[in-house]
Amino acid sequence: QRARAYGLAIGVLPTGPLNAITDVEGVRVGHTTVVQGKTVRTGVTAIIPHTGNVFQQKVPAAVYVGNGFGKLAGTTQVQELGNLETPIILTNTLAVGTGLNAVVDYVLRQPGNEQVRSVNAIVGETNDGYLNDIRSRSITEQHVRAAIEQASSGPVAEGNVGAGTGTVCFGFKGGIGTASRRLPAKLGGYTVGVLVQTNFGGVLQVNGVRVGETLGQFYLSEQLKDKADGSCMMVVATDAPVDARNLERLAKRAFMGLAKTGGIATNGSGDYVLAFSTHTGLRVPYASAEATQTATVLTNDAMSPLFLAAVEATEEAIINSLFKAETTTGTDNHTVEALPLDKVIPLLKKHHALKP
Amino acid sequence: QRARAYGLAIGVLPTGPLNAITDVEGVRVGHTTVVQGKTVRTGVTAIIPHTGNVFQQKVPAAVYVGNGFGKLAGTTQVQELGNLETPIILTNTLAVGTGLNAVVDYVLRQPGNEQVRSVNAIVGETNDGYLNDIRSRSITEQHVRAAIEQASSGPVAEGNVGAGTGTVCFGFKGGIGTASRRLPAKLGGYTVGVLVQTNFGGVLQVNGVRVGETLGQFYLSEQLKDKADGSCMMVVATDAPVDARNLERLAKRAFMGLAKTGGIATNGSGDYVLAFSTHTGLRVPYASAEATQTATVLTNDAMSPLFLAAVEATEEAIINSLFKAETTTGTDNHTVEALPLDKVIPLLKKHHALKP
Amino acid sequence: QRARAYGLAIGVLPTGPLNAITDVEGVRVGHTTVVQGKTVRTGVTAIIPHTGNVFQQKVPAAVYVGNGFGKLAGTTQVQELGNLETPIILTNTLAVGTGLNAVVDYVLRQPGNEQVRSVNAIVGETNDGYLNDIRSRSITEQHVRAAIEQASSGPVAEGNVGAGTGTVCFGFKGGIGTASRRLPAKLGGYTVGVLVQTNFGGVLQVNGVRVGETLGQFYLSEQLKDKADGSCMMVVATDAPVDARNLERLAKRAFMGLAKTGGIATNGSGDYVLAFSTHTGLRVPYASAEATQTATVLTNDAMSPLFLAAVEATEEAIINSLFKAETTTGTDNHTVEALPLDKVIPLLKKHHALKP
Amino acid sequence: QRARAYGLAIGVLPTGPLNAITDVEGVRVGHTTVVQGKTVRTGVTAIIPHTGNVFQQKVPAAVYVGNGFGKLAGTTQVQELGNLETPIILTNTLAVGTGLNAVVDYVLRQPGNEQVRSVNAIVGETNDGYLNDIRSRSITEQHVRAAIEQASSGPVAEGNVGAGTGTVCFGFKGGIGTASRRLPAKLGGYTVGVLVQTNFGGVLQVNGVRVGETLGQFYLSEQLKDKADGSCMMVVATDAPVDARNLERLAKRAFMGLAKTGGIATNGSGDYVLAFSTHTGLRVPYASAEATQTATVLTNDAMSPLFLAAVEATEEAIINSLFKAETTTGTDNHTVEALPLDKVIPLLKKHHALKP
Repeated sequence: QRARAYGLAIGVLPTGPLNAITDVEGVRVGHTTVVQGKTVRTGVTAIIPHTGNVFQQKVPAAVYVGNGFGKLAGTTQVQELGNLETPIILTNTLAVGTGLNAVVDYVLRQPGNEQVRSVNAIVGETNDGYLNDIRSRSITEQHVRAAIEQASSGPVAEGNVGAGTGTVCFGFKGGIGTASRRLPAKLGGYTVGVLVQTNFGGVLQVNGVRVGETLGQFYLSEQLKDKADGSCMMVVATDAPVDARNLERLAKRAFMGLAKTGGIATNGSGDYVLAFSTHTGLRVPYASAEATQTATVLTNDAMSPLFLAAVEATEEAIINSLFKAETTTGTDNHTVEALPLDKVIPLLKKHHALKP
Repeated sequence: QRARAYGLAIGVLPTGPLNAITDVEGVRVGHTTVVQGKTVRTGVTAIIPHTGNVFQQKVPAAVYVGNGFGKLAGTTQVQELGNLETPIILTNTLAVGTGLNAVVDYVLRQPGNEQVRSVNAIVGETNDGYLNDIRSRSITEQHVRAAIEQASSGPVAEGNVGAGTGTVCFGFKGGIGTASRRLPAKLGGYTVGVLVQTNFGGVLQVNGVRVGETLGQFYLSEQLKDKADGSCMMVVATDAPVDARNLERLAKRAFMGLAKTGGIATNGSGDYVLAFSTHTGLRVPYASAEATQTATVLTNDAMSPLFLAAVEATEEAIINSLFKAETTTGTDNHTVEALPLDKVIPLLKKHHALKP
Repeated sequence: QRARAYGLAIGVLPTGPLNAITDVEGVRVGHTTVVQGKTVRTGVTAIIPHTGNVFQQKVPAAVYVGNGFGKLAGTTQVQELGNLETPIILTNTLAVGTGLNAVVDYVLRQPGNEQVRSVNAIVGETNDGYLNDIRSRSITEQHVRAAIEQASSGPVAEGNVGAGTGTVCFGFKGGIGTASRRLPAKLGGYTVGVLVQTNFGGVLQVNGVRVGETLGQFYLSEQLKDKADGSCMMVVATDAPVDARNLERLAKRAFMGLAKTGGIATNGSGDYVLAFSTHTGLRVPYASAEATQTATVLTNDAMSPLFLAAVEATEEAIINSLFKAETTTGTDNHTVEALPLDKVIPLLKKHHALKP
Repeated sequence: QRARAYGLAIGVLPTGPLNAITDVEGVRVGHTTVVQGKTVRTGVTAIIPHTGNVFQQKVPAAVYVGNGFGKLAGTTQVQELGNLETPIILTNTLAVGTGLNAVVDYVLRQPGNEQVRSVNAIVGETNDGYLNDIRSRSITEQHVRAAIEQASSGPVAEGNVGAGTGTVCFGFKGGIGTASRRLPAKLGGYTVGVLVQTNFGGVLQVNGVRVGETLGQFYLSEQLKDKADGSCMMVVATDAPVDARNLERLAKRAFMGLAKTGGIATNGSGDYVLAFSTHTGLRVPYASAEATQTATVLTNDAMSPLFLAAVEATEEAIINSLFKAETTTGTDNHTVEALPLDKVIPLLKKHHALKP
């Protein structure tokens, strides 16, 4: 069950109806989970910004690099041009090339893209090599294609699915998590949705409660299965009319949400945030006869409520990834236990961190 | 009393003996508190990296800009050259020019600097204009000079002192705070010390406990005295041999500590971190006959424990600034209450957030 | 005489009518030249973006740091918020604090700003300490105020004026220079104007001709009066509707113009570009009841002609600063010769670099 | 013939013996040229930093993004960690994924890397789609592997080879180019070598002479075969002991060299520089028992001569790419003419731009 089902309500803002990135209208998510024999535990997750041809109708976007170990291929073009032109793919570290090839192929084949000769595909990754025989390079272009094709709106599968199949977070089984926040109508009624792929460490706090310490499982505790290294990919979507400059600022707040779970962005962690706006008034046409574009965007002053929303949704998405993940055994007979909710829920109760 | 006196022990690492930035050997702090009549509530805080001539023996340094509203004059040269050549001055927003002039004067007069013709002074600020008649521009060069001259090692005054005299944090009286962490000997035994000037907002959490919500005082709660805007200046010192590139990464972790207190870096917040290393082997001589310099520095891999130290020390320094600040009435008869410890301590006890 | 008067026409785009930053409508420039006795050779130059209250009606702006030695106070806020709220002041290195104080004072006193409590003043500098007794700190707030008050549209004085009074460029007397470019009507008819304060070195090329080498005066030539160090402050104005993100890109192209004159951005050079748009549709009101703002801006694709304009105008502005500067004797009996046009013009003719 | 063979000597510093990136000891370059039928004109170029196992003995490195259209996969990790752990691959825009896959495969197979589970491959690109049927995606992993395996020291093939097979520069046939500079012994005797893949536009200047204008072929001239868009990948190698922070500054100077050829970094140009140091004292071991590393590096002050070297070598490398490229017909019967040296050389002579 997700965190909210236990009464765990992070922050002060209300969630969207699904408490998921798909609360942002038009955003779709698809997973390909790749589990083969005893050694392959990996997968692909695709996030698609809108239901049209994304290459022809790009969305404003930005990347914030929390800690740049690892990679989010396509970052520099997003930073330069302020827009995103493909689905976002998350997968494992050694499958980034395959991810790029698959997205390029997908874009070239899309109706309307017959003359396209340049594609900036976005592919992020975390390293699932503790549970997954990552050197076997099991991800194929077909896996990536399937994640894109299966993408749908509605509830998002979390935990051991897609790109979260083999990840480890705070020494426990991590995975995919999502959450959302919706601003009050008088603040615009905008939605911020976040999806994360959790594979990092630190000193776990759940809604402020020092769970990692109580369980004796934290960075420098000498009991962690591996170093706190790893990574966290964060995708932030909003329907608010936010331009690329302010999306970069919004992206940075997702990193603050990671901090609140106890993440410390260790040297070996690749902590990246990609943020985009689905607002239809801000679409960037691939080809335009016009030299100018008119848009209505939020002012700097109006951003702060969205910043709070991004902090909260990211914190909760990470916690959801832990709550929904399940104990997994993979390569080299490595086993990573799920967060022991039988211990954690009573602990949260004791600390008055659950709503009655 | 400081947070630790109540049993509030943030994080998993031990503190230095003073739990202050001055645990980093050689670092000195000085305050000039400027309280005049009913309207002036401001001041200056100086942090001096070492006991020698800092201009002649610069220290490796870096700046991380969490949110760049407001200013930290001197930032770009630190980012380009990777070193710091003056004391660091904190004061109010409209006194940055006076701070620069005073530091330039100080450096030009220092014995040994007779030929110096360029000085990159570092002056940061937060806006204390809610309690302080900031437009009266009460800070003088003499105030700045006094802060430098009074700087000393040993315990650091916190709360309503120096640059923290008139600041507001999470809707309560903020001010100066400090804390430190010392790594275990097997991880090098290094010390990380942090000093903050707190003047920002969000949704206050104290060691994870949702104090802001319980007190009904938080961003978007409709009860805050003013917007969450404001700023937080953070100074991180370490005796570890860290070069400028890794100091920038260390600085970023202080921003993560801010996030853990519930700060969200609102649009109008100037959240800056300046980090430096006092390690004597890394001093950068102003004039050198040599084209090369030999130094022993920590590897990337060895940085993670320091990252954790910076997160923890910053979080605790912010909490200390709140615990030590006192209710203040200033300009326009504005009053800002101190954090009500009579309510907060029982709350923390109830949530098991204090050590017995 | 300016370069064009000799037939020196840099680039392929036409100039505006004045070939100056003031070709961008509403932009005004003012100089205070401070020459005292045998030792003081310095000054102040102010650039004011429009004729209204700039604080109340901010302009979109960006800063690009070519080489961050030296300082451009106020940089980080411009980078974060994407706008400029004060006149831009250029002066000498040790007068930045005085510049800030003067601008803050100016803004606080402006009618309509009675409630303003935070000002992000922009003050840049180069080090004129070879000709100017910079340690005497001769610049006063009144000098700065005078530059602002005297600012006017129309032709801009160049060479040994204002902030260029004591500067040195490529081993010759530098100073203030300006130039502009106007795009063809079918590309929008926009104007780009540049003003520079030149105090840097390298290997001088004038419209491609290797003048520095021919004159035996270049970096590493062993004949330079001082190191190539120094700085170049560049201000780029345009009436094109360019948002902050694309203004940052435009600013970077000014640095390319510097490169074309033979500048190499030595370690000790502070090479900064500040770019802003005067387009009235993009003004950012200080206080607004609205959470959104509607604007029509140039697309990414439409920026390239402006990029070319910025490269060309910057190159020519630097050359103008050299052509207009005059031989100067200052502190310590240092003399810096003007660029010897009696040798340079024949050389340019020989190389067919002048229009007939 | 290369530019020097005609007496074209750019700049004031001497070249290395080969006037190539391979003048930096240990650096090797390999090309796979892929020409198939009438439509495929593309290839791969590999640059290998040293002769050992680069993953196990990483080199300090940095990336500067001049204009971030297009991509240089792997950029963010280089920026974060300051080192490079694989060969650098240059190819066409749609082959980046294949490049990544091939490099990952290469690294995983290298003896000594049996336990490696994370690889940050560096793959850059320019878009050769005007001459090459880029949508056919002709580059295979085997092509990439071959470029790595064929890499050698010694003279470097230029023009229509490897990743330069189908590129266009200033409206003429571009390609691969290289050049080097060697500092005088008293400045350390260090070598800076540059290799470029040229596919960009602007207003061509050859050693300052306005060739593009004379030939009537320049950006906005209405006669260019396509927009000035395109890209330029630049790789800078040095044997000087330069750390990552100063390598980033060195990289930026290569972009200044591009500016001197008349490039303007149009919106659609991907202008990236990757710089690395081969100095053996700065190698970064993959696995080390030590938490610290001792290194002797150049001071900031000592960097300026290297900056000049990077500017000059990049300018000359770009010019070499044009001089060595040959008229090419490719997809859609597009033909791009080589720079017409029969016109250009007399023009350079007339302008006294050739050494007698």
